[in-house]
Amino acid sequence: MRLRSPHLLGLEGLSAGEINLFLDTATTLREILSRPIKKVPTLRHITVLNLFFEPSTRTRISFELAEKRLSADLISFSAATSSVTKGETLLDTIWNIEAMKIDMVVIRHQVAGTPHFLSRNCESRIINAGDGQHEHPTQGLLDIMTIRDRFGKIEGLRVCIVGDIKHSRVARSNIWGLKTLGASVAVCGPTTLLPAEIEKMGVEVFTRVEAALEGADVVNVLRLQKERQTSGLLPSLREYSQKFGITRERLKYLNKGFMIMHPGPMNRGVEISSEVADGPYSVILSQVTNGVAIRMAVLYLLGGGAGKIE
Amino acid sequence: MRLRSPHLLGLEGLSAGEINLFLDTATTLREILSRPIKKVPTLRHITVLNLFFEPSTRTRISFELAEKRLSADLISFSAATSSVTKGETLLDTIWNIEAMKIDMVVIRHQVAGTPHFLSRNCESRIINAGDGQHEHPTQGLLDIMTIRDRFGKIEGLRVCIVGDIKHSRVARSNIWGLKTLGASVAVCGPTTLLPAEIEKMGVEVFTRVEAALEGADVVNVLRLQKERQTSGLLPSLREYSQKFGITRERLKYLNKGFMIMHPGPMNRGVEISSEVADGPYSVILSQVTNGVAIRMAVLYLLGGGAGKIE
Amino acid sequence: MRLRSPHLLGLEGLSAGEINLFLDTATTLREILSRPIKKVPTLRHITVLNLFFEPSTRTRISFELAEKRLSADLISFSAATSSVTKGETLLDTIWNIEAMKIDMVVIRHQVAGTPHFLSRNCESRIINAGDGQHEHPTQGLLDIMTIRDRFGKIEGLRVCIVGDIKHSRVARSNIWGLKTLGASVAVCGPTTLLPAEIEKMGVEVFTRVEAALEGADVVNVLRLQKERQTSGLLPSLREYSQKFGITRERLKYLNKGFMIMHPGPMNRGVEISSEVADGPYSVILSQVTNGVAIRMAVLYLLGGGAGKIE
Repeated sequence: MRLRSPHLLGLEGLSAGEINLFLDTATTLREILSRPIKKVPTLRHITVLNLFFEPSTRTRISFELAEKRLSADLISFSAATSSVTKGETLLDTIWNIEAMKIDMVVIRHQVAGTPHFLSRNCESRIINAGDGQHEHPTQGLLDIMTIRDRFGKIEGLRVCIVGDIKHSRVARSNIWGLKTLGASVAVCGPTTLLPAEIEKMGVEVFTRVEAALEGADVVNVLRLQKERQTSGLLPSLREYSQKFGITRERLKYLNKGFMIMHPGPMNRGVEISSEVADGPYSVILSQVTNGVAIRMAVLYLLGGGAGKIE
Repeated sequence: MRLRSPHLLGLEGLSAGEINLFLDTATTLREILSRPIKKVPTLRHITVLNLFFEPSTRTRISFELAEKRLSADLISFSAATSSVTKGETLLDTIWNIEAMKIDMVVIRHQVAGTPHFLSRNCESRIINAGDGQHEHPTQGLLDIMTIRDRFGKIEGLRVCIVGDIKHSRVARSNIWGLKTLGASVAVCGPTTLLPAEIEKMGVEVFTRVEAALEGADVVNVLRLQKERQTSGLLPSLREYSQKFGITRERLKYLNKGFMIMHPGPMNRGVEISSEVADGPYSVILSQVTNGVAIRMAVLYLLGGGAGKIE
Repeated sequence: MRLRSPHLLGLEGLSAGEINLFLDTATTLREILSRPIKKVPTLRHITVLNLFFEPSTRTRISFELAEKRLSADLISFSAATSSVTKGETLLDTIWNIEAMKIDMVVIRHQVAGTPHFLSRNCESRIINAGDGQHEHPTQGLLDIMTIRDRFGKIEGLRVCIVGDIKHSRVARSNIWGLKTLGASVAVCGPTTLLPAEIEKMGVEVFTRVEAALEGADVVNVLRLQKERQTSGLLPSLREYSQKFGITRERLKYLNKGFMIMHPGPMNRGVEISSEVADGPYSVILSQVTNGVAIRMAVLYLLGGGAGKIE
């Protein structure tokens, strides 16, 4: 199995084999994270540029850790919407990166498609760390890895994603990956937070959470951006919580052996109750650990890692 | 001698033996800083996260240097009061750090007690780089190291701390450490900048600087935050300077062989005159050098350093 | 050939031999950038502090890359005009850096002369990464390197610099270096953007771009700061573009074999047309690659590099 693309732009279009290659490699690499010496020299000669045009704490730290664990050299640049990214100049930015002989670029950008645009115009390997409301493929992979860890497979599972589906790149990456691996996916949220024609992605759509949870093995609870309220898409956080919050009472609709996921950071008491977040079925912290492993796997595979992992 | 805690949260509660272990280790490690090759591989396999929730230049650079000198991997995150630290979510932040398998966390936070809260809830080693108006233990240790360098001991010395005692974590850490090692400590400042019941910490309290300086071996001059004036705690900088500024004339009250300290950055002409800051009795730059050595010692000892320093 | 100064503060005052030493070393080091393994251990024991008091993306990334390529340890600090740099305290900042045993300081500062002030007051090696409207010596060196690459020499060439000469440290560094190596230099811009007495630097001054381009081998097109318009120094961007923009039609005035340079980031359609920027005579991306090589050479030579480059 080899990857067809030298970039990771999204889970859309990846084959099941490619997704499994990422998951299998991450599973191997995760073992390094529990060693006393958590570092291998694998990417010692690779330089990675982390370009974050949107604020990020967790994803940035997770990527930087993955890079350090593999001994890559890294340079990080965080900026609010910067002049370098406006219009045509984005192309100049890309060419500059390439002229500086940077091997890989991890990019988060508020405009959907930016990583794709970069990848078409330079030879550096591009890793999408979140582009607008489009995709967040490493989050999708780490979520799927966490599900596979528990159930041993994805095929035949039912995964329910609850929350602001419309604005969520996490939802989109999960849907693409899960569908490719044979899961059935339900999405649920207020109608104002459901994208038009979402059912064309091959998911079932619910606006009543109880019906959505019925028969699910996994619930992936999305973070509610509180800004949605001020923009008029939500009546109130309290009402959202009452109608869509994942509470202990609502868990009864789920299949036996269910698990609860959240990409973080959580609004406890809004989209998820603390009781659920901290319950024995919650794998939220495993997601974080797997996040470092998945990012290591992506860097390793795109960085040309074909040999044995030391 | 071994440390009882895997964390460094404050100097309060440390034994004299523990404080001396930090100072002795720093003295050994300081020798590395004057070598042509200023680096040892000791913490090669340790990952340190520097989490600065308050702006910091000097302390952050000093910690990062100490980490590099010991070959640790490091990731730095600076933020103004960030959503990740609000209320309950701080606990989630901690758990995330732990799930990412980070060995040590250096944290500066505007809320007193934050490092303690972290330490109770995760297995990473926590180093307090300043919490609110509570403690700044590495500053306390480097100040005490600088005093011990000169006098060969702390016991029996008289140290006078002048300035805004009320809001100063530097003062608090100094008092705890100095008292434990047997110094007598005097504090001096305008009544509005003296905390209630400060004498319960076992210090003598003065509001007239000449009286406070009388018989002191060491003066530790605190930085005056100019914001204190706008908040009505100070009549004017000029009046503060006239009443409390450490000028050459005021040095006559001190014991022979006295020394002058300041944690930086200085407001020359406000709390300290340039003549004093640059005088032969000033050890302000030794404090900076010792700061790197102390931070190396803290990282080394908490990082499990028990073997021989190379 | 040895450098006379342990610092790189500007190209003014450097001898032709010194400039050529930088260029020759960069040419050798550039070869490393095209290797699969782009890293040498040369500065393994050097710590560099990158102090950027003005926003910078490209120059900072370029310096950091150069430092990583040479295996230096680096600490970066970016700040808007910070309290640490005001007045007298700048000296304290310097002394702090020195007390922390930092070997080299790369500094960008909005006040002209800041790197010089630092260099007079501490033993760390100082590299000017841009000081106010004064000099940007590594940009000057990389521009000259790019010209020498093409023509094999500088002597006898005619270089025309077009744009906001008045506020440009790039222009100033280019002029000093090019004149020392025997080029003839023309500058051209609106009278409001030409400094008084610029001809004393030994350049020809033009306010009509066609006349300036006549007989030139190289055009260095400066970035137009759009703020110049709001400050009343420019009627409008459109008018600037019409009068001074480097378009394909205007290239006819140039000598055969001409080349076009721009320090980036470009305002396409303002000071340069896209057709010109992307034309076969454009060496803009070679400038970027050479930028890393020049910064490696500067770090290498000031860092004491005398031995063989591995």
